[in-house]
Amino acid sequence: MTALPSAAEVRQAIQGCLLSALPRPETASRPELAQFARMLRDYPERGGKMLRGALLVYTGLAYGAALEQLLPVAAALELFQNWALIHDDIEDGSDERRGKPALHRIYGVPLALNAGDALHALQWGLLVQAGVPQGVLLEFVRLVERTAQGQHLEIAWMEGQRLDLTEADYLEMVGLKAAYYTAVAPLRLGVLVAGGEPPQAFEEAGMKLGTGFQIVDDVLNLKGDPAKYGKEIGGDLWEGKRTLVLLHFLRNAGPEERQRAERLLCLPRPQKPAAEVAWLHHRLISSGALAYAERVAEGFLEEGLGRLRPLLQEAPRRAFGARVVELLEGLVRREA
Amino acid sequence: MTALPSAAEVRQAIQGCLLSALPRPETASRPELAQFARMLRDYPERGGKMLRGALLVYTGLAYGAALEQLLPVAAALELFQNWALIHDDIEDGSDERRGKPALHRIYGVPLALNAGDALHALQWGLLVQAGVPQGVLLEFVRLVERTAQGQHLEIAWMEGQRLDLTEADYLEMVGLKAAYYTAVAPLRLGVLVAGGEPPQAFEEAGMKLGTGFQIVDDVLNLKGDPAKYGKEIGGDLWEGKRTLVLLHFLRNAGPEERQRAERLLCLPRPQKPAAEVAWLHHRLISSGALAYAERVAEGFLEEGLGRLRPLLQEAPRRAFGARVVELLEGLVRREA
Repeated sequence: MTALPSAAEVRQAIQGCLLSALPRPETASRPELAQFARMLRDYPERGGKMLRGALLVYTGLAYGAALEQLLPVAAALELFQNWALIHDDIEDGSDERRGKPALHRIYGVPLALNAGDALHALQWGLLVQAGVPQGVLLEFVRLVERTAQGQHLEIAWMEGQRLDLTEADYLEMVGLKAAYYTAVAPLRLGVLVAGGEPPQAFEEAGMKLGTGFQIVDDVLNLKGDPAKYGKEIGGDLWEGKRTLVLLHFLRNAGPEERQRAERLLCLPRPQKPAAEVAWLHHRLISSGALAYAERVAEGFLEEGLGRLRPLLQEAPRRAFGARVVELLEGLVRREA
Repeated sequence: MTALPSAAEVRQAIQGCLLSALPRPETASRPELAQFARMLRDYPERGGKMLRGALLVYTGLAYGAALEQLLPVAAALELFQNWALIHDDIEDGSDERRGKPALHRIYGVPLALNAGDALHALQWGLLVQAGVPQGVLLEFVRLVERTAQGQHLEIAWMEGQRLDLTEADYLEMVGLKAAYYTAVAPLRLGVLVAGGEPPQAFEEAGMKLGTGFQIVDDVLNLKGDPAKYGKEIGGDLWEGKRTLVLLHFLRNAGPEERQRAERLLCLPRPQKPAAEVAWLHHRLISSGALAYAERVAEGFLEEGLGRLRPLLQEAPRRAFGARVVELLEGLVRREA
């Protein structure tokens, strides 16, 4: 039986596998293509938590897969995350990523968009080279498609200046945009690599966990430690993101505050007065909307874990299942 | 033996397979996702020549594959073309595609970029669902990666205001950006679907043919019939594309004309005076640069065909091989 690798060992092994699938600037045939290689390696080399990859690896180990089978799939999932972030940062007009300027702020939109497409292809290359089963490939098709659907909802709402959204709308969007690829897909992929059929309950548990994770992200965007969070604090307000915190505030604000907030949210980023953004930021916290979202997130994480724990205790290799639970428990207390 | 389907029948069958792989607005769960589905179907429903798909199908038939095996791979290649065009149009700031506004001109950059990503995933979905051999998937990884490298070269040259480029630079860029996926990949994929090993000479012949095809495209951009060409005539000049026509003109112009052209090419699109663009457009034709490029293109197409003809005459099903040659001969005389 495979020894129990530590989270740091798993992260490092995934990172090694990921980087080995990317072109190297040293071997490029001309300076422009060396730049191309540097662009592809930029976000991956910035690190990142590799939470999704680690979740996949431990789940797969729990269900009997070998580490060597799991690493390329985990690395491909992290590659997905990297190209999706490059494109998201363009779509959202974000300035920062993992504590540095977003890729399109360094190289411009056209080259960054193109680098994201190349990484997308290399994600598939990693999977195909590893000879993964068809079910793994189909799971990747599904996760990319769902994420794009969720991304479409979020952008369409921002561009359509939609503020008449319910909590159910938000949860549907976040389920597609984040929860599926963050938690459902890693759990399912782990079992698929092991040659098993993912339990039906993985989907429901993963949706809860992934949604809780995203709400924590929304909360950290408002009150995180900038050094740890790696993105602009309050960036969601500047970008006009429809978060659970914001929707709860709007629903419970008096007509005057609600109008003031809506006026601000409908302005394009460069026209938003900093003082108004600071006012809304302050009110989201002082009104209790942020604390409400924290409670909702904790509830989702608890529910998801409650459903997952018994399943993982029945997994063929229980020690690894316990590691999955540990990893997921960390989601509530995370600072980045 | 499969009957000899006409080019129109093949095109229609590829189109049918392609569209059946895309989501339908009628079955979307909410209006925003119906819009998402409409966006994915937009470029594919505009039609297009399906030249690459047809080339793949006839090559595969010549080497013994069945039409049903070839259609999903041809449809995936056309899907590649569609998402790549959506992203290219954003990268180049293009206004039109297939006679209509570019997708990002209708829906904005964020939603169009995201729709391209979803189509990219569905391209892989089509291939995986069809259960194609690993070699076919690896060929797709290669063609996307090469195209992205070529795209990087072209954009880096435009953004870096590079005008000190040789004909060899241009040919390397076009080989990566266009020739590989336009001709090499369809030829190779046809044989790979048939379970064979593509002849080494396919790569060399395909590079010649694909390069000739792209030069004809550059020429049509300057003197095509707008109704047939489907893109803005002279658009390459507004976008500052480094074409063979342009490089030949610059190399042979007197110092005054060269300076005047370079000044124009270094201006961003909105600052380019229309009269200066019209002057350069006129001079590219009257100086003989356009005729030069036409001769180069014909030479490439002839050489490529010369190398390909004997190979296809040895193919297991020669009648289909003749159809491949016919299709490729049409490339020289095409108007769109």
